[in-house]
Amino acid sequence: MNVLVINSGSSSIKFQLIKMPQEHVAASGLVERIGLDGALIHYKSGDFKITKEVDVPDHETGLLKITTYLLDKEFGVISDKNNIQIVGHRVVHGGKTFSKTVEVTDDVKDKVKDLFALAPLHNPPNLKGIEVAEKVFSSAKQVAVFDTAFFQTMEPKAYQYAIPKELTEEHDIRAYGFHGTSHKYVSEKAIEYLTEKGLPSGKIITIHLGNGCSITAVKDGKAIDHSLGMGPANGLIMGTRAGDIDQSVIFYMIDQLGYTSDEVNNILLKKSGMLGLTGYSDMRDIEAKSADGDEACRLALYTNGYKIKKYIGSYVAAMNGLDAIVFTAGIGENSSVIRKIVCEEMEYLGIKLDPRKNAVRGNTVRMVNEPDAVTKVLIVPTNEELEIAKQSYNLVID
Amino acid sequence: MNVLVINSGSSSIKFQLIKMPQEHVAASGLVERIGLDGALIHYKSGDFKITKEVDVPDHETGLLKITTYLLDKEFGVISDKNNIQIVGHRVVHGGKTFSKTVEVTDDVKDKVKDLFALAPLHNPPNLKGIEVAEKVFSSAKQVAVFDTAFFQTMEPKAYQYAIPKELTEEHDIRAYGFHGTSHKYVSEKAIEYLTEKGLPSGKIITIHLGNGCSITAVKDGKAIDHSLGMGPANGLIMGTRAGDIDQSVIFYMIDQLGYTSDEVNNILLKKSGMLGLTGYSDMRDIEAKSADGDEACRLALYTNGYKIKKYIGSYVAAMNGLDAIVFTAGIGENSSVIRKIVCEEMEYLGIKLDPRKNAVRGNTVRMVNEPDAVTKVLIVPTNEELEIAKQSYNLVID
Repeated sequence: MNVLVINSGSSSIKFQLIKMPQEHVAASGLVERIGLDGALIHYKSGDFKITKEVDVPDHETGLLKITTYLLDKEFGVISDKNNIQIVGHRVVHGGKTFSKTVEVTDDVKDKVKDLFALAPLHNPPNLKGIEVAEKVFSSAKQVAVFDTAFFQTMEPKAYQYAIPKELTEEHDIRAYGFHGTSHKYVSEKAIEYLTEKGLPSGKIITIHLGNGCSITAVKDGKAIDHSLGMGPANGLIMGTRAGDIDQSVIFYMIDQLGYTSDEVNNILLKKSGMLGLTGYSDMRDIEAKSADGDEACRLALYTNGYKIKKYIGSYVAAMNGLDAIVFTAGIGENSSVIRKIVCEEMEYLGIKLDPRKNAVRGNTVRMVNEPDAVTKVLIVPTNEELEIAKQSYNLVID
Repeated sequence: MNVLVINSGSSSIKFQLIKMPQEHVAASGLVERIGLDGALIHYKSGDFKITKEVDVPDHETGLLKITTYLLDKEFGVISDKNNIQIVGHRVVHGGKTFSKTVEVTDDVKDKVKDLFALAPLHNPPNLKGIEVAEKVFSSAKQVAVFDTAFFQTMEPKAYQYAIPKELTEEHDIRAYGFHGTSHKYVSEKAIEYLTEKGLPSGKIITIHLGNGCSITAVKDGKAIDHSLGMGPANGLIMGTRAGDIDQSVIFYMIDQLGYTSDEVNNILLKKSGMLGLTGYSDMRDIEAKSADGDEACRLALYTNGYKIKKYIGSYVAAMNGLDAIVFTAGIGENSSVIRKIVCEEMEYLGIKLDPRKNAVRGNTVRMVNEPDAVTKVLIVPTNEELEIAKQSYNLVID
């Protein structure tokens, strides 16, 4: 069965055509700069790769363009657009309405719209993606997979903020979490891996370090706590996002330094994090500079790692123990430096990173702790598109 | 030697006259509603207690009024105001300038003034207290004890925020911490107690739960991390203060709900915390309601305790182990309920609260864990005034 996975942004559509249940990626790509000059389509199928400038005034044209490529005689992978039986959509915010993947109905679309205020940058283009896919692939089942759904198992003590309860209730102010598709995929892979080895997996912590960064406590397969809150800004230090910050700093910048709240928000989202600390947002640059003796870069790496360590510690307290920590996403999978900083001086948890294994790159699930370590350290490559395809497929065939 | 300890607020002066080195409190009290109608003086010496309406237009008059009481033939405790050799002042914010207690000089006063922007509600009246004490007790040594000083041993990875470094450097934006006088006093008492019993004390966590709440990781007697930041608003859930909150909530309230930033700040400081969650700010009321079946109160207690548990976990990670946790201040010393919630399901740390010992009230340093518990649980009554007196006295006689 062909599942087209779509991630529709304000000016882009990312896609993968995945054959299920084989989990085979037949084609993938991206249309970017939708509605702007110089729109591009990137398309890849097997060894074939192309990038071309195209005229894409709107999302519908973008999706039709993708369809043309998928149907192409030479490099296409399907012969008829009705061969796409399922379109799986990434939807960022499911609020407290959606605790699992659902087939799209008018009611689902209305509810996604009701959540615009909670994710003003993401839910509108996500819904747009659904609407154009309904037109273009009218015979396919449309499925919505929510980034927040995995965290709906959190208890109130983990998700409620200590603010007036009238506010909380009336405006649904609480922690929702993000990167749920990744944390779900990675935690399931990790549990499967540990179980196969006869190792315990009831208490694990998944650490997603990519452009965005977040960390989840997963107890018996269920998310019980998570670092991102109502928005994608707090928690761990990210490439350009500050992560956790004392609210006094925000009011100080507004009251004493004369910034508007929009300016502060923009600084905390786009000019902070590793970029703010070092002048660089790419972890590879920062690691190289640090190795060359740049003190701000070295300190930023340790500040970042220290924050992760502390989150690990807090989630171990939340679970009353720990079986494994799991690194994933671009930085988590590839930065041996960050993994080393996070794991050192954590003997109290029985964490012992094997420096040799930690240094080896790879794209499979692997364990990088020393053999006698009580708490295991895993690296699990994430795959959000595959998770969306799996969930969409499972829902439809169920 | 007579040390007069002064805590000067915007419309109040709290005082204690403490005989050192005996640590004997000869008299204590408060002048409140300074500059307002219906100003009051509360004065206590031994069993003698009085509250009287007085005319106090300004802080100087307030301190003179206190002096009159201290000198009173009937219930006073000194015969001449020159018998007060030291005045020890609580100063809230020492910024990065003051890492220890200092004798007041013109330079010190200038620097306290430079820090007004960081503590606009506290440093101005603290300085006012110093200035009037210099007039009223011109022969005494004036000493400034800073609430932030104990935390100046924190490393950058613990105190820096991941925001643009230009901002940090130019405006001294970083975590400073508060309640330092209490955390210092309590950690020293705990270390002394543990050492006398031949127990390790290199890794302890002090948990100050009063009107304000905060928690400190104390490694080898030095603060290495702390929950309050640049202001007294974040970290643990307090009576009316929210503690940690996702910054997205702040911007959501401003952008989507139409609050001004001042209103949001006010809500987070004065209408949030336990008050926001339950409608009550006094922990005794909340515990009573919870016992009567009030679900919001029960949940608020667990949310509060869960936050403390997670901070404990994070500081254990920061120290790579734990010898003892120490409860102090009004709630920490008196709420067996909160201590129980914090300590339960923490077997991974070897925490085992003895329910019988936990239930006993007292005003001495005591250990309330089961005998075989690896990590000790202490209750240490705090005494910020005595700590200020001790530090002032030690500085002067040194």
